[in-house]
Amino acid sequence: MTSLTAAEIARRIEAELVGDGAASIIGVAGLREAQAGEISFLGNPKYAGYMAGTRASAVVVPRDWTGECPAVLLRVDAPDKAFGEIATWFLPPPVETPPGVHPNALVDTSAVLGDNVSIGPFAVVEAGARIGDGTRIGALCYIGAGVSVGGESCLWPLVSVRDHCRIGERAVIHGGAVIGSDGFGFAVQPDGHREKIPQLGIVEVGDDVEIGANVTVDRARFGRTRIGNRVKIDNLVHVAHNVVVEDDVVLVAQVGISGSTVIRKKAILAGQVGVGGHLEIGEGAICMGQAGVTKDLAGGKMYWDTPAIDHKEWARMHSVQKKLPVLKGRVEALEKRIAELEAKLGGEA
Amino acid sequence: MTSLTAAEIARRIEAELVGDGAASIIGVAGLREAQAGEISFLGNPKYAGYMAGTRASAVVVPRDWTGECPAVLLRVDAPDKAFGEIATWFLPPPVETPPGVHPNALVDTSAVLGDNVSIGPFAVVEAGARIGDGTRIGALCYIGAGVSVGGESCLWPLVSVRDHCRIGERAVIHGGAVIGSDGFGFAVQPDGHREKIPQLGIVEVGDDVEIGANVTVDRARFGRTRIGNRVKIDNLVHVAHNVVVEDDVVLVAQVGISGSTVIRKKAILAGQVGVGGHLEIGEGAICMGQAGVTKDLAGGKMYWDTPAIDHKEWARMHSVQKKLPVLKGRVEALEKRIAELEAKLGGEA
Amino acid sequence: MTSLTAAEIARRIEAELVGDGAASIIGVAGLREAQAGEISFLGNPKYAGYMAGTRASAVVVPRDWTGECPAVLLRVDAPDKAFGEIATWFLPPPVETPPGVHPNALVDTSAVLGDNVSIGPFAVVEAGARIGDGTRIGALCYIGAGVSVGGESCLWPLVSVRDHCRIGERAVIHGGAVIGSDGFGFAVQPDGHREKIPQLGIVEVGDDVEIGANVTVDRARFGRTRIGNRVKIDNLVHVAHNVVVEDDVVLVAQVGISGSTVIRKKAILAGQVGVGGHLEIGEGAICMGQAGVTKDLAGGKMYWDTPAIDHKEWARMHSVQKKLPVLKGRVEALEKRIAELEAKLGGEA
Repeated sequence: MTSLTAAEIARRIEAELVGDGAASIIGVAGLREAQAGEISFLGNPKYAGYMAGTRASAVVVPRDWTGECPAVLLRVDAPDKAFGEIATWFLPPPVETPPGVHPNALVDTSAVLGDNVSIGPFAVVEAGARIGDGTRIGALCYIGAGVSVGGESCLWPLVSVRDHCRIGERAVIHGGAVIGSDGFGFAVQPDGHREKIPQLGIVEVGDDVEIGANVTVDRARFGRTRIGNRVKIDNLVHVAHNVVVEDDVVLVAQVGISGSTVIRKKAILAGQVGVGGHLEIGEGAICMGQAGVTKDLAGGKMYWDTPAIDHKEWARMHSVQKKLPVLKGRVEALEKRIAELEAKLGGEA
Repeated sequence: MTSLTAAEIARRIEAELVGDGAASIIGVAGLREAQAGEISFLGNPKYAGYMAGTRASAVVVPRDWTGECPAVLLRVDAPDKAFGEIATWFLPPPVETPPGVHPNALVDTSAVLGDNVSIGPFAVVEAGARIGDGTRIGALCYIGAGVSVGGESCLWPLVSVRDHCRIGERAVIHGGAVIGSDGFGFAVQPDGHREKIPQLGIVEVGDDVEIGANVTVDRARFGRTRIGNRVKIDNLVHVAHNVVVEDDVVLVAQVGISGSTVIRKKAILAGQVGVGGHLEIGEGAICMGQAGVTKDLAGGKMYWDTPAIDHKEWARMHSVQKKLPVLKGRVEALEKRIAELEAKLGGEA
Repeated sequence: MTSLTAAEIARRIEAELVGDGAASIIGVAGLREAQAGEISFLGNPKYAGYMAGTRASAVVVPRDWTGECPAVLLRVDAPDKAFGEIATWFLPPPVETPPGVHPNALVDTSAVLGDNVSIGPFAVVEAGARIGDGTRIGALCYIGAGVSVGGESCLWPLVSVRDHCRIGERAVIHGGAVIGSDGFGFAVQPDGHREKIPQLGIVEVGDDVEIGANVTVDRARFGRTRIGNRVKIDNLVHVAHNVVVEDDVVLVAQVGISGSTVIRKKAILAGQVGVGGHLEIGEGAICMGQAGVTKDLAGGKMYWDTPAIDHKEWARMHSVQKKLPVLKGRVEALEKRIAELEAKLGGEA
């Protein structure tokens, strides 16, 4: 583990040191989460309120910053730039993956491996699979029959890609992701029981895609479930069968998309958004966290709530909603006043 | 990869061809998601709006359909039936799993395997486990001690079934599912820390059940967490300890059910529904997507919202809610009018 | 499988038997979920309504309980205590894990294993990893380079801990959990595409932590994502990069926490709660199920709804909201009454 004194760090980044230069620093962290032994930084004035309470042993601050802070201060012109440099000194050593098939991996003789491919221990690569140049298949991965994975990709340990699915170039797929599981399709029989509808299609993933840990992408009934180029998918996202996620879409953690829905280019679905089946979300649309989409959404707008509506409309509704008890009081007051008027007028009539 | 000309496809399904018969077709897809080289179909008139913008190279349409479409048209009497037939020509080849224990699998000598069982590479089958006739245990699966799995079942790669859990006949369990993890139970001690309560029960799964990718079903504290017959569970669903999911229930993706709750027969929980603990959801009840269930729900009805209420009640409330800004305006107008009346009457008084 | 007659059970717990002592009991279960062959108990009078409909073959009841029940009754002074004892007779046999490295495991020669460590079949332990005394690493687990796992811990099969992450003493990590996957961080380029920001930090987990099945905890961009001591995390929870979860926090199933957020000590996030990025949830705060947190929350209070607000405020708002159709009717009635008054006064004017 790297350990540097505050004075040594100050010297390297040409900072003015205020406090105990002998303080020992063993890591970096944000102001709020830092612990003793860590160095932090104040890059944005809005976080200044956390300075007095930080547990960091040292903080990189702007030269002219004044305020209370229990930590050693390192004054510089550009704290975020200096901090970025410091952070690199405390990195864990990079992990090297030697190319080649690990002797404990199991690669079918009909599989085709490119140059400099690395296959980890206890990984299984089935018949007819094709792995592109420079791609790493982690330990304990399962690559089904006829699967293709493009070059310069990285599948971390314990990823599963079922038969005939296709992954593009430069993919990053994190542990526990399951690509190509059966779509959730059943035909209700006259007696009420559900009969499985065979899911005979595949999943096709474009180039430069990242797929998070424990994500599930189901194979199509026929044809393919498609993930476009440069799509970024966070952890624990669910993509159902026959969904199309177009290029440059972002799916944040725990999003769920029902069958046959199309997410047009550059749309962003924030965390825990749910989308119904057979819908279309327009290009560049943004659904805020936990929104529940029940109908087609036009592109280029922001949506929230369940059922999801235009965010501006939601804001209008919500501002009144928050004051509902007040509104109810106003209606009650009106009822009282009108009753008085009625009494008065009734008396006059 | 199968490749057919549009003309050849037209000939096989006895379609009238309109356009370039030499167009090469390599796959099938829906109208909205189809790419060049794919054939699609117009089965439902409500999708006719997508015809002009489709990227499909060919589309199967009703004989009398008129409208704009850049693709080659194949006119037939029943487009969906013809398309279903075409789709089978483009299927990936089926994957054969040879029966037998893979030489790289690890099966305890006390485990009992039925006829025609297939155990994949790097799968682990612990002591006393029993695997029924014709069942496939995929690569990298973990079958704990004393587990039983019924016949004609399929566990895809990377499934984990912990000790003593029981899975019925004809189960399909997708990759990453974890059956029999500890229930989430802790006793808060006088000093505030939580002490683990041993989770000593099991999970029991009925016959004809499908369990999606990365699903988690926790074992009971005592006794068992029970999944009934013909229950269908989609990806990333969580079932807590001691829950009972009765026969023919459907749990859509990302549903979460808290401990000791009972889901009666034929109920359907749509995507991302959450259910509190120690509750009962009645037979045939339907909870719409993202509903949050906080109390017992009577059977046979539809529910939505958090806290979940009868869907009709919700619809009534929601229709007013959407017009809240208008309602507020009406109250303001009333206040103004009544103030005028009061002024007038005050003047008269 | 253990099988006892109702009479034998009655004799052991010194119960008064009412009904057929020959009834065969093979397991325990709650009143609502019990099946034929199982024994249940009535510990809390509020569940008495389930007695008449139970399918249990026998029920342990208070000595003075009167009511209808189809099952054999066993009358005792303290039903819950007696039931706890009975439950232990029907436990599955405990699973023994022999210490030592399984011959099919792959442990790098530079890894350091404590005394009585157990490494399961097909587990991979990479270079420089350190495993504390008495810790069990289950079958098919992946322990990355430089990882440390404290003593007396248990990693169930199919857990993945990526390089350089640190797990404390007495950890319990359930199947499918992925610790140390890359944080979800991308820099939008001038042409709109997203470039991956290297995630160079680690995950650090304190002592006495439990992590549920298929949980994902992302590594920090720099520094570390931190899970404090005695934190309990249920299944399918997502913790993003640079999040800090302080000591004694409880995260119930399917919770999602966005990047750089701090959850202060003893806070409880109920099932499916979502929390935005760069926020702080105060000490001891409780977020009820499905709440969506969009701003900092003060400690010691209870919150609900999306966006999350104080639970009391929510309750006030919600009680009016439920009566919105009524309120709308009252406004309509007022409009009618005021129109009448105006007509009257207009006529008088």
